[in-house]
Amino acid sequence: MKEVSTKPLANILDTLRDELRRFASERDWDQFHTPKNLAMALSVEAAEVLEHFQWLSPEAEATIRTDKAAQIRLELADVLLYLVRLADCLDVDLAAAARDKIAINGEKYPVERARGSAKKYTEL
Amino acid sequence: MKEVSTKPLANILDTLRDELRRFASERDWDQFHTPKNLAMALSVEAAEVLEHFQWLSPEAEATIRTDKAAQIRLELADVLLYLVRLADCLDVDLAAAARDKIAINGEKYPVERARGSAKKYTEL
Amino acid sequence: MKEVSTKPLANILDTLRDELRRFASERDWDQFHTPKNLAMALSVEAAEVLEHFQWLSPEAEATIRTDKAAQIRLELADVLLYLVRLADCLDVDLAAAARDKIAINGEKYPVERARGSAKKYTEL
Amino acid sequence: MKEVSTKPLANILDTLRDELRRFASERDWDQFHTPKNLAMALSVEAAEVLEHFQWLSPEAEATIRTDKAAQIRLELADVLLYLVRLADCLDVDLAAAARDKIAINGEKYPVERARGSAKKYTEL
Repeated sequence: MKEVSTKPLANILDTLRDELRRFASERDWDQFHTPKNLAMALSVEAAEVLEHFQWLSPEAEATIRTDKAAQIRLELADVLLYLVRLADCLDVDLAAAARDKIAINGEKYPVERARGSAKKYTEL
Repeated sequence: MKEVSTKPLANILDTLRDELRRFASERDWDQFHTPKNLAMALSVEAAEVLEHFQWLSPEAEATIRTDKAAQIRLELADVLLYLVRLADCLDVDLAAAARDKIAINGEKYPVERARGSAKKYTEL
Repeated sequence: MKEVSTKPLANILDTLRDELRRFASERDWDQFHTPKNLAMALSVEAAEVLEHFQWLSPEAEATIRTDKAAQIRLELADVLLYLVRLADCLDVDLAAAARDKIAINGEKYPVERARGSAKKYTEL
Repeated sequence: MKEVSTKPLANILDTLRDELRRFASERDWDQFHTPKNLAMALSVEAAEVLEHFQWLSPEAEATIRTDKAAQIRLELADVLLYLVRLADCLDVDLAAAARDKIAINGEKYPVERARGSAKKYTEL
C-alpha cells in the first residue's frame, strides 16, 4: 500500500519566514534586524513601490512598461520579505492576523453602507 | 480504509487574494482600487507600523506593551492585505516573486562578504 | 530723520529652528531627537499627509472639505517642523540646500526637453 | 542722502514657492502637480531620507560619511521643495501653519509633564 503523507503543506508565509531566518543567521544579521530597523525597511520598500506610480495618470497606469513591471514585482517582493521578517521578530502569525483583520474590516464596512463609497468607516 | 485528501492546501496568499477580491467586489470598490491608490494605501499602512517604533530606544523595544502589540499585529495585517491586493491588480504572483527575490539577494549578499555587515551590496 | 532698521529679517527657517531647539531643550527631548528618530518622524508625518489623498479621485481633490483642509494644513506644518529639526541635527542649512537643489533640477530637467513630460531625468 | 530700502526681505518659503511656480510653469508641469501626486512625491522623498538611517546604530549615526552627508542634504532639500509646492497648491501658508502648530504642541506637551518623556500626548 502506498503511503500517503498527511503532513500539511507548509504555509508559504511560514516557508518564507524560515528562509529569512536562515538568510539572516548565516550572515550574522540578527543584530541589525531589530523591529525598529525592520519597520524602517518596510516603509522604505513601500515607498519604492509608490515611486513608480507617483506621476502616473489613471490612463497611463494601464500601460506600465514591461521593464517597469519586472522592477515593481521585485519591489512588492521586498515589502513581503521585510513584512514576514518583522512579523517573525514580533512573534506575529501574519496569516492569522490577516484573517482577523478581514473579519474586523467586514464589520467596519458592512456591504449595505460601504457600497460604492471611499469614505473611512468613521465617516460612513 | 480512511480516505486521505490529496487536494493541496491552498496557498494562504491565494486565499487572501480571493477573499479581498470578493470583499472589494461586494462593496463596488474596484473603482477605487487602482494600483496608484493601493500603492498609497500600502505606504500609509507601513508608516502606521513605523509610528509605533519611532521614539523607542533599543531597550524599550524589548518590552512593547501588550495593548500596543495587538495594534501592531493588525497593522502588519493591513500591510499584507494591501500588498496582496496590489499584487493582484498588477498580476503579480507574490509567492513566486518573493522566492525570486530571495535568490537575487543571495547573490547580491554572498555569505562570506556580507557576514556581520549592514552595508548595501553596492558597497560591500 | 527717521531711523530705518537695516537689521535683516530673520529667515523663517532659522526662526523655526531656534524655537524647536528651545522646545526640545525645555522638555529634555534632545535624547530622543537623534537623526534616525527624526527621519522616522518625518516619514510618518509625510504619510499622514498622504493618507488624506489616498482614495481621492482627481475631481474630488478640488473640493476637499474645510475641516479636512484644516487638518492637512497642520500636518504639512508637522512635516516642516520635523524637517527643520532634522536638518538642524545634521547641520544642514535648508535654505541653501533648497537653492542648490533647484539649480541641480534646472540642469537635470532643461525646459526644452522636460516640457510636458513626467519622465524622470534619466529617461528624458 | 542714501536711500534705504524698507522693502522687507522676502520670506525664504515665499521665495521658494515663487521659484517652484516658475519652474513648473516653464515645463508645463502644473498638469502633474496635483495635491495627490505631490503628496506621493513628498512621502517618497521622506523615505529616501529614511533609507540612509535604516541600518545605522546610534553610534554609527555620529559618523555619517561625508559623501552620504551631501546626499542627505539634497534629499532634505527635496522634501522641502515638494512640501512648499504642495502647500502652494493647497493655499496653505506654511510659515503661519508652522507657528500655529508649535503653539498647539506647546499646549499638548506642557513642560512639566512632558519633560524627559517620549510618550504621545494622549498617554502623558
